Amino acid sequence: MRVAVDAMGGDKAPYEIVKGAILAAQQFPDSEIILVGDEKEIQRELNTYGKPLKNISIHHAPQVVKMDDPATSSIRQKTNSSITRSVELVANGKALAVVSAGHTGAAVAAAAMHLRTLKGVRRPGISAPLPTRHGICSIIDVGANIVCKPIHLFQYGVMATVFSKYIFGIENPRVGILNIGEEDAKGNDLAKETFALFSNSLLNFVGNVEGREIFDGKADVVVCEGFVGNVMLKFAEGIAMNFLSTIKEEAMKSFWTKVGLWLCKPSFKTLKAKMDFTEYGGVPLLGVNGVCIICHGRSNSKAIQNAIRVALQLSKNKVNEHIVSELEKTNTLTANIS
Amino acid sequence: MRVAVDAMGGDKAPYEIVKGAILAAQQFPDSEIILVGDEKEIQRELNTYGKPLKNISIHHAPQVVKMDDPATSSIRQKTNSSITRSVELVANGKALAVVSAGHTGAAVAAAAMHLRTLKGVRRPGISAPLPTRHGICSIIDVGANIVCKPIHLFQYGVMATVFSKYIFGIENPRVGILNIGEEDAKGNDLAKETFALFSNSLLNFVGNVEGREIFDGKADVVVCEGFVGNVMLKFAEGIAMNFLSTIKEEAMKSFWTKVGLWLCKPSFKTLKAKMDFTEYGGVPLLGVNGVCIICHGRSNSKAIQNAIRVALQLSKNKVNEHIVSELEKTNTLTANIS
Repeated sequence: MRVAVDAMGGDKAPYEIVKGAILAAQQFPDSEIILVGDEKEIQRELNTYGKPLKNISIHHAPQVVKMDDPATSSIRQKTNSSITRSVELVANGKALAVVSAGHTGAAVAAAAMHLRTLKGVRRPGISAPLPTRHGICSIIDVGANIVCKPIHLFQYGVMATVFSKYIFGIENPRVGILNIGEEDAKGNDLAKETFALFSNSLLNFVGNVEGREIFDGKADVVVCEGFVGNVMLKFAEGIAMNFLSTIKEEAMKSFWTKVGLWLCKPSFKTLKAKMDFTEYGGVPLLGVNGVCIICHGRSNSKAIQNAIRVALQLSKNKVNEHIVSELEKTNTLTANIS
Repeated sequence: MRVAVDAMGGDKAPYEIVKGAILAAQQFPDSEIILVGDEKEIQRELNTYGKPLKNISIHHAPQVVKMDDPATSSIRQKTNSSITRSVELVANGKALAVVSAGHTGAAVAAAAMHLRTLKGVRRPGISAPLPTRHGICSIIDVGANIVCKPIHLFQYGVMATVFSKYIFGIENPRVGILNIGEEDAKGNDLAKETFALFSNSLLNFVGNVEGREIFDGKADVVVCEGFVGNVMLKFAEGIAMNFLSTIKEEAMKSFWTKVGLWLCKPSFKTLKAKMDFTEYGGVPLLGVNGVCIICHGRSNSKAIQNAIRVALQLSKNKVNEHIVSELEKTNTLTANIS
């Protein structure tokens, strides 16, 4: 199984990306990892690790999409960028999956442009795992599709159900709609119309889910418009960091709380690990014809290693094939919906 | 200054509401508090506190809007409900402010119906204070206006600026738009068009604010559509509770972390107090012709007492008068916007 890794994408590229690729290549000796980007730079990084690994190769791409480049136009203009070249390897059948920690918008645009969508999929969506005390809740979409139609949210429910089942091993994932109240008739038109679609489907639909209920384990999959999902995910990151620093600040104010904080360290470590995005490696862009894993811009080698693992899992478990066949089953329900 | 308090609204009504009213009546002897609701029930509660206070009276209202009643239709049908009667007291000039911990949707509907909007206001919005390490950030709207137009968000910026200045004492509040990226051209049409309006205004506009940046103290006021704001606020509540219980769970697993947790207790208490909604008492519905404070359904007496304090502050500081005059200044900018 070949995975194309965008070696130039991310705040710590190429150093952490190359290191993560090496870790993954060692962990999965049957896989082949293609590092895409500036050949010289990548080779220099690889050289620092001594003896070359047989299952790592380089694919040259001289350009880089920078974090402040506009998403779509940079993909159109920088046709030799590491992200475009990585996606093209998948489009041309030379790799099964692509992993990138670069510009998210550019990765989504490149994937949409070169991979196209899977049969039956209207719009791809990014599914992010949110760790709760009750397990992992998949939030979809978190930023690929800013303005959604009900059919998009419905299909996100189908796709994330498949993902949840084959990647997290949840037998019959419960699907909910992120909304401002639990009652059926709550929310904006998007939520109401999506509610009707899910109600008529065979999915394990549990109705509307409020923001706080995500943490009560009410659903395994929660669908929402990309704008809302993206805002919420970043908000969660902010609140978590704010929380930890406030506790630390407060505890440093007296001797005994300082001692308490020191004793509590293992608990904080577990908590941090549970909330650590690097554990999950990356989030899949579901619905494109190929496996595309998008990583946090701040990804370190561990995150990249885990992202490659997720990419391999998706290919191995034929998640895309299952998505196509599950969507086919909803054809009669959705055929006339625009 | 007279404040009408919906004595029947909230999970702990009328007990905690009456108790909160008594605390406020003692704290503000110059104010008059009118408890609105079932006369007998309220009197029974009052009797348990011994000698009656001169500045507390009862206004009878036999009906109650329940938490699962539909918002608008229940206001139309239950014309003798405690919330409607409370709002009517303000509409008829018999009170300056209304405080309710009941059904939020019903309170908003009653206020919109009976108080109408302030001169120049297109839509009322709820402004919620979010405590961060850098101070309080006002998020508006968090649920009064589910589907917003750019002009609504723009006016929210004006109204919350006034509120932030006169209630939190922030001299020249920085206003931002909740968005999925910092760049000017990011987001959905609503965000982009609102961006243009703010850019041409005299407000202290700081551009787009991402979810995580709220906690970095980038803005004192953040505007967003009611749907997004409501989801986010409830999400914050969920994540905070999830966080605390996870730390507790983890810390209880070993003797030393248990000791550490016990020593850290004061720090957790400060943190909890900082995040405690009861400290803020309630959130104002800005833009209606009268003062309307909406409280959390789980409000206790302290929250009610603080909500009455906020109501008095809004009246005393003439926040509504300032809103009208500040909006007047934006007339040339917004006159032709629908």
